[in-house]
Amino acid sequence: MRAAVFEAPGSIVVVDRPDPVLVDPGDAVVRVTATCVCGSDLWYYRGQSPRAHGQTIGHELVGVVEEVGADVRTLRPGTTVVAPFRWNDGDCPHCRWGAPVACLRGGIWGQPGADGAQGEAVRVPFADATLVAVPDGAATPALVPSLLALSDVMGTGHHAAVAAGVRPGSTVVVVGDGAVGLCAVLAAHRLGAERVVACSRRPDRQALARRFGASDVVAGRGDDAVAEVLDLTGGVGADHVLECVGTAESMRTALAAVRPYGGVGYVGLPHGVELPVGTLFGRGLTVGGGIAPARRYLPELLADVLAGTIEPGLVFDHRVGLEQIADGYRAMDGRQAVKSLCLLG
Amino acid sequence: MRAAVFEAPGSIVVVDRPDPVLVDPGDAVVRVTATCVCGSDLWYYRGQSPRAHGQTIGHELVGVVEEVGADVRTLRPGTTVVAPFRWNDGDCPHCRWGAPVACLRGGIWGQPGADGAQGEAVRVPFADATLVAVPDGAATPALVPSLLALSDVMGTGHHAAVAAGVRPGSTVVVVGDGAVGLCAVLAAHRLGAERVVACSRRPDRQALARRFGASDVVAGRGDDAVAEVLDLTGGVGADHVLECVGTAESMRTALAAVRPYGGVGYVGLPHGVELPVGTLFGRGLTVGGGIAPARRYLPELLADVLAGTIEPGLVFDHRVGLEQIADGYRAMDGRQAVKSLCLLG
Repeated sequence: MRAAVFEAPGSIVVVDRPDPVLVDPGDAVVRVTATCVCGSDLWYYRGQSPRAHGQTIGHELVGVVEEVGADVRTLRPGTTVVAPFRWNDGDCPHCRWGAPVACLRGGIWGQPGADGAQGEAVRVPFADATLVAVPDGAATPALVPSLLALSDVMGTGHHAAVAAGVRPGSTVVVVGDGAVGLCAVLAAHRLGAERVVACSRRPDRQALARRFGASDVVAGRGDDAVAEVLDLTGGVGADHVLECVGTAESMRTALAAVRPYGGVGYVGLPHGVELPVGTLFGRGLTVGGGIAPARRYLPELLADVLAGTIEPGLVFDHRVGLEQIADGYRAMDGRQAVKSLCLLG
Repeated sequence: MRAAVFEAPGSIVVVDRPDPVLVDPGDAVVRVTATCVCGSDLWYYRGQSPRAHGQTIGHELVGVVEEVGADVRTLRPGTTVVAPFRWNDGDCPHCRWGAPVACLRGGIWGQPGADGAQGEAVRVPFADATLVAVPDGAATPALVPSLLALSDVMGTGHHAAVAAGVRPGSTVVVVGDGAVGLCAVLAAHRLGAERVVACSRRPDRQALARRFGASDVVAGRGDDAVAEVLDLTGGVGADHVLECVGTAESMRTALAAVRPYGGVGYVGLPHGVELPVGTLFGRGLTVGGGIAPARRYLPELLADVLAGTIEPGLVFDHRVGLEQIADGYRAMDGRQAVKSLCLLG
């Protein structure tokens, strides 16, 4: 099969790799029909995190089951599935507690020795527990981008909202206008937030944030953004702030824009971020987040995608084929694209 | 009237002070019938936090209304009341949102210019919003210690449990065996935790923790405590950890004893505490707490005290009169007492 691999910073190539085969009786082989490039893929692309020469890449996928092992009970060849960005056994204490992302036998597509999602097919461990089936005939071409968004970005934006404690009637600020931030706007709106303030200075992203349910847009950054939020909230601050960037400045903005005893959900992988305990304690803030338990959220979000009430696939604004996936990286690296979709077959 | 004041580190004296009078129409004057010494009072007693020579002290009290201003509607002379450790107007955005502790016009007994609770009487601003009435005849001598515990320690222990997300069936670890830690054990048990692990090496506190609902006691500290918790939980860690000390070591213990994607509630004022963002993000932890909104919790906790289902007053193990209140400080400073009760009149 053909699959993208990391060659060196700035260089993604598509090469021939062995077709995946069943190894364990709980495995499935899934033919990938759609994958995409994640903001986190840019870390190794930019040389900001290490990755081996020739390593597989990509961790978001929608596909069709091609083959299943002897122990697989809920899937059959031909079923369309969404895969979360990590596999999980569904049976360890963390899985059973609702944290499949911490599964003791879990892993992520593209880790050493595993297939990457940016390829024609993947071997899926613990297929019954990992994959979520899409009803026959439901995965129309128009719906595929939104299904694919459930692999990671929509679940991650939703996790920020859940971790921050968003509830019906909340006033929410979302820091970050990348794909995750935009999905966080959608998630907050979906959870019943009355007011959702998106932070963005780019007209196209402002427009999508509004389409996703933002009631207000703040164009400033840092202290300016905080001042605008305080102005919008009568000096009080937001009930909940969703930090979807991961920089020191974005976290400072989040901690200053939230009201006393409010909640901050953070899902941007922290780079240089500090959590000042004096501020947190003194203002009574709750801070939570981390890597999203995407598998846990998948069924409820899938139901809403199928019902047409959310359309997270709108975050994709660039399309490539597998052989041109390097273009998808370049467009996101150069900020010409929010998120690059890659359709196969 | 007679009231205790701070003279210098290690020196608490009882002096004559002016009787409080009504100043604003929402005020009440309350004659104090019971007060106590808080762990946080030891900071200035030990010279660890600054306090002016001659400043009033104490912030926990049960009393009887003596006089009310023209605007006071819900209280009348003779009513027994519990005061939370801060007063609040009940009407600002923070009060209305459930964070009266952040009231824009709030304050704490013993702050410069205010009466301290360790005295014969206090002026209470915003009396209707601040004070919680005890039904006539209910404040029996046997019940007074538990009513007094609602001023601060029980509400603070409860806040740790709420901030950590304790729910029915939870496995909870409480770090700290002071009055707040013991109340946190009681709070976790009250909220339906199935397993409550108290950390204490002192037999009398272990016994009280068990009476408050602890199912297990861990005697180790630091890494030893973590190892014991992991052993008790099959290597998983606790669903929720309540950090009721405020030291760097106690927070490290809390963050290591909690399971991935679990919650840490912390209510010990942090001294040298760090919140390592890499650990928090990587383990998906939620951390919340700070100064407890004691007023918000008072009605529900009072109902349980009156019903006899909780008895937080058991944390008091030393009794003094007002003129001997310095003894109450000494006993707590020397760790001979968990918490000193001071009965007046």
